[in-house]
Amino acid sequence: MNFISDNQAGAHESVLAALTEANSGSSPGYGEDMLTAAAEGAVGAVFETDCQVFFVATGTAANALAMSALCPPWGAIYCHEGAHIQNDENTAVELLTGGARMVPIAGEAGKPDPQLMRAHITTATIHGVHNARPGAISLSNVSESGTVFSPDDIARYRAVADEFQLTLHMDGARFANAVVASGASPADLTWRSGIDCLSFGLTKNGGIAAEAVVMFDQDMAEQFAFRRKRAGHLWSKQRFLAAQWLALLTDDLWLANARHANAMAQKLAAGFAAHPSIELPWPVDANELFPVIPEHIRIRFRKAGLEFYDWPAQADMTRFVTHFATNSEEIERALAIIAGTA
Amino acid sequence: MNFISDNQAGAHESVLAALTEANSGSSPGYGEDMLTAAAEGAVGAVFETDCQVFFVATGTAANALAMSALCPPWGAIYCHEGAHIQNDENTAVELLTGGARMVPIAGEAGKPDPQLMRAHITTATIHGVHNARPGAISLSNVSESGTVFSPDDIARYRAVADEFQLTLHMDGARFANAVVASGASPADLTWRSGIDCLSFGLTKNGGIAAEAVVMFDQDMAEQFAFRRKRAGHLWSKQRFLAAQWLALLTDDLWLANARHANAMAQKLAAGFAAHPSIELPWPVDANELFPVIPEHIRIRFRKAGLEFYDWPAQADMTRFVTHFATNSEEIERALAIIAGTA
Amino acid sequence: MNFISDNQAGAHESVLAALTEANSGSSPGYGEDMLTAAAEGAVGAVFETDCQVFFVATGTAANALAMSALCPPWGAIYCHEGAHIQNDENTAVELLTGGARMVPIAGEAGKPDPQLMRAHITTATIHGVHNARPGAISLSNVSESGTVFSPDDIARYRAVADEFQLTLHMDGARFANAVVASGASPADLTWRSGIDCLSFGLTKNGGIAAEAVVMFDQDMAEQFAFRRKRAGHLWSKQRFLAAQWLALLTDDLWLANARHANAMAQKLAAGFAAHPSIELPWPVDANELFPVIPEHIRIRFRKAGLEFYDWPAQADMTRFVTHFATNSEEIERALAIIAGTA
Amino acid sequence: MNFISDNQAGAHESVLAALTEANSGSSPGYGEDMLTAAAEGAVGAVFETDCQVFFVATGTAANALAMSALCPPWGAIYCHEGAHIQNDENTAVELLTGGARMVPIAGEAGKPDPQLMRAHITTATIHGVHNARPGAISLSNVSESGTVFSPDDIARYRAVADEFQLTLHMDGARFANAVVASGASPADLTWRSGIDCLSFGLTKNGGIAAEAVVMFDQDMAEQFAFRRKRAGHLWSKQRFLAAQWLALLTDDLWLANARHANAMAQKLAAGFAAHPSIELPWPVDANELFPVIPEHIRIRFRKAGLEFYDWPAQADMTRFVTHFATNSEEIERALAIIAGTA
Repeated sequence: MNFISDNQAGAHESVLAALTEANSGSSPGYGEDMLTAAAEGAVGAVFETDCQVFFVATGTAANALAMSALCPPWGAIYCHEGAHIQNDENTAVELLTGGARMVPIAGEAGKPDPQLMRAHITTATIHGVHNARPGAISLSNVSESGTVFSPDDIARYRAVADEFQLTLHMDGARFANAVVASGASPADLTWRSGIDCLSFGLTKNGGIAAEAVVMFDQDMAEQFAFRRKRAGHLWSKQRFLAAQWLALLTDDLWLANARHANAMAQKLAAGFAAHPSIELPWPVDANELFPVIPEHIRIRFRKAGLEFYDWPAQADMTRFVTHFATNSEEIERALAIIAGTA
Repeated sequence: MNFISDNQAGAHESVLAALTEANSGSSPGYGEDMLTAAAEGAVGAVFETDCQVFFVATGTAANALAMSALCPPWGAIYCHEGAHIQNDENTAVELLTGGARMVPIAGEAGKPDPQLMRAHITTATIHGVHNARPGAISLSNVSESGTVFSPDDIARYRAVADEFQLTLHMDGARFANAVVASGASPADLTWRSGIDCLSFGLTKNGGIAAEAVVMFDQDMAEQFAFRRKRAGHLWSKQRFLAAQWLALLTDDLWLANARHANAMAQKLAAGFAAHPSIELPWPVDANELFPVIPEHIRIRFRKAGLEFYDWPAQADMTRFVTHFATNSEEIERALAIIAGTA
Repeated sequence: MNFISDNQAGAHESVLAALTEANSGSSPGYGEDMLTAAAEGAVGAVFETDCQVFFVATGTAANALAMSALCPPWGAIYCHEGAHIQNDENTAVELLTGGARMVPIAGEAGKPDPQLMRAHITTATIHGVHNARPGAISLSNVSESGTVFSPDDIARYRAVADEFQLTLHMDGARFANAVVASGASPADLTWRSGIDCLSFGLTKNGGIAAEAVVMFDQDMAEQFAFRRKRAGHLWSKQRFLAAQWLALLTDDLWLANARHANAMAQKLAAGFAAHPSIELPWPVDANELFPVIPEHIRIRFRKAGLEFYDWPAQADMTRFVTHFATNSEEIERALAIIAGTA
Repeated sequence: MNFISDNQAGAHESVLAALTEANSGSSPGYGEDMLTAAAEGAVGAVFETDCQVFFVATGTAANALAMSALCPPWGAIYCHEGAHIQNDENTAVELLTGGARMVPIAGEAGKPDPQLMRAHITTATIHGVHNARPGAISLSNVSESGTVFSPDDIARYRAVADEFQLTLHMDGARFANAVVASGASPADLTWRSGIDCLSFGLTKNGGIAAEAVVMFDQDMAEQFAFRRKRAGHLWSKQRFLAAQWLALLTDDLWLANARHANAMAQKLAAGFAAHPSIELPWPVDANELFPVIPEHIRIRFRKAGLEFYDWPAQADMTRFVTHFATNSEEIERALAIIAGTA
């Protein structure tokens, strides 16, 4: 019963089948192939708009390359203090932007406080050339606390961005889970609420290495192909990236996968909620749970076969993640362990 | 009959099978999985030594990351003026090294002239802080002209490197073809003849995205994991990179693939050699041919279905590449076209 | 009565005289001149040790270049949250280190809390390649709150550095004031208490553009000359940098200047302390004061001719700075205004 | 008799006087002072246009910062193969642009061949993301061979720039000498003939550290202040940079200085021309001479007290440079040595 991370799952069988299918015959390299064109079109269809799509293999690449187009090298990027881009991607942003600075902002349950953000930006703006110039805001949806931003939530950050002429980025490593959880359309959750650029990840949702930078602003996308290439992220056999996307977007498999993962998380949440000594300080909006579990219970859980992370955000906090391949049986067994009946 | 590039081929069926096999169950992420450990060990076995192995998805990433460990940001990197790392990887070296400079050196058939290289290095050394400090030499084996460096060839560059305390890198995007062509062992062709670091590529040889940085010097490898991570080249589901390597290294499939590709190139070479108006200025050592073909013949070839690149190195030059999946039938048809009998 | 900053003062007359003297005849360029050699030696004498000295024109250059030698591009640099290097030097550290990350640490009166620092470093270390690797600690002495670190204070950070194999840097933009205030020798205040590298500034202390990177560790200094050159900080006519240093170090003029500045600050401090509505939350150790002054009094002060900064660290806080050229008369007038008798 | 370089001269006495004058009283820091405003205005007057002026201390800083605004990090910069920016400024361009690439172009007497340049650019353009994207052309006026570009010369490069949408930069480390030599106005020699940005240097012409980036295009200048700051090139006491400019621009002292230097060079040139064994392969347009002198004569010259560089561009080549402080007496003595009468 591995609840450590959704990146510990394998790939959906449709993805593997798509690779085999993509393998027949020769094909132009470096993204000039027909599967890439088709997959780019499929992503555009998801968002109901013309957009520029750049496939890459990792979420860190997607985020850091996106920021390099959204923020100048002397810029500041505002994100939640617990964000993946801040804590889990080394200095990728610094490297690929040419030295922009991450500014972590506190806030409840993975959402940076807009007023606190505004205060930081105001101070930096007043300070002129002496401080990093406010450049961009990055939101993670699903957040690193497992919560989901609605279009209205996003619009609040767009207002800050507009006030100071910043760009607005979304780290969508679990974008599918956010779409399902919010009930909003991909378009409503992104460009219609003011997102300029999305890191769209399907690796955690059934892919092997399926990430994309989606640019809703044509000007920002200009020359992005050069950025991807020089960072070593343009595949020669790119059809094998594109094939994953086509497999997962076809018949909304990506949303079905996310729906399943979120549902499994709800079941688990109910189990934790029923436990007298376990608390869930943050809402379980999507496929991640952060129960606070006393140590002796954690020990018992692990002995019984539950695998999960200890989470540094607060004392005794843990993280459980479900995914497309989490099955009901696993959940039932986990619930029995949690309830103490197994 | 696509002879454009070996990266236009698909993947070997064993590689796809290995992905499917790798897919069962959950697995630690970010290279902590057992397949990665096994694949790293398999690479070590190929080279008959302890070495540090870092898997990445593209050859550009492998080359530029390697150079970042081999050369300081204020260093100069000497390579052949036609090298891939010089002409076909944008400014990846500059980005990932933090600003090192490529210094292209002329030389016959893809091999930089050692005396000319020595002269450049001497001038730069005399100039002290004012010029980029000589830092590294990079050789491509197979070279960008389709020729192969023997261990003795390599030793000549090692002597230059030793004279000026430089590091020595090999771009082995077609390393398998070089091993087969030279008859030397992988060890003899690398660390035993003085190579510090190899970009070892199997993408062109049956992989999907199978590249590795192989460090023969423990000190240079130190902290390389941080370099890979911050460039966005550490996969979360790295087992799917490792599986490709295991598939290709098992039972020396990689060498069989290369042997086949080289053999196909020899057949094609014989066909060109028999043609009264076509010249092959460079030896066909491996799986690439650079025939000089008058325009009207090129037109005829293309009409008949041959696909190949025009090559800018000299007037009327073209490039033909064979690969693991090039079949004898294709070659026969191509030969007939070349001979004018089809 | 300008108390805005010690960089609003001009240069000491000895410095100008030294420039004129340095001007006679021709001289080798790029630091190969005799004045540079003499000035480097004079700095070494100040620290009673062999050290490597690199003159530059700005404190930002000194700090960011120093960090580039002390911390890898994927490293984290721990400093006080109010430090100049964090808030007032844009993204110079990011640029010149190749992307290292500043990690601001809270702490009383300009001194980062060692326990909090240790906690941050521990978390990052556990997180391996995923987070910036702990690389260096930077202390400002005088701190950005006007307080001074004693050798014992510094040793506490050295202990943290040793525990995690970090380097230890001191931003000595007001090093002279710290030396005078602490009563410790320059050697005791730096390498003898564990400092690896000092940004030694005399611009604020009577120079025009007189900053130096002083490396106490020979290995770290290796190739630093290349770093300075490629950042555009090697002057062709470097004798004019060196001359400033010689003028200020001769007969300990730099210390006399600092002693005067500190004494002027003490007088001003007494004036503020006597005021019933003004508080000085931080000790006045050197030449900076941070009185908290109610708004109506600030307005009165400014109307009467006092010039000073509002300081963002807390509500109603201001900053007053004295310097070598602040004269007693100015202080008397200022005290009269503060006392309300002028 | 030091003819090694014009940066081995001291400063003009007016410059030193201006520093003393600038020293009185306190003054806002970081370029907010009145002298800076006046000096920026004086530069604008020289060019008869609104332009953005940024003072820095070194030519390397001016050049590399200029290129960072003129060329993207993935861009190629075309210059003469002998240019200072290519050979004598380490990897400053790479560092400050974030990784752009220098592409050296051959050409007669310091002037890159426009046709050769066009050929390089065409090849790179065709190659798309795979090669560095053509970004900028940089001309040195005076060139590194001592020759001068006229407005018509410059227009030929502007045509290339326009054809490929590149920017056009001039390295004017010896701009004064070029103005005097060409007889063209500063405006005609820059923006009127298509220059977008000038590195304007007066250090070699009587300054101490007097360089400026002059931007004729408002859009390119945007946010340049951030670039200068983060590279550590914004002085706190910038009035001392500005004062040098005001001293040298007042009453066209800069042009008088250059006129003198050029005249001294002409005298020396006549001396070399009269010598049966010495050749001057390049025209002596300004204040630099590159005589080819047989070794035994070089030895004799040096024994007699002449100081000069050996120049690597061709066998037996040397470089002699005159400057504002070269006096007629020195020239007479030098001529006597050359003629063999001393």
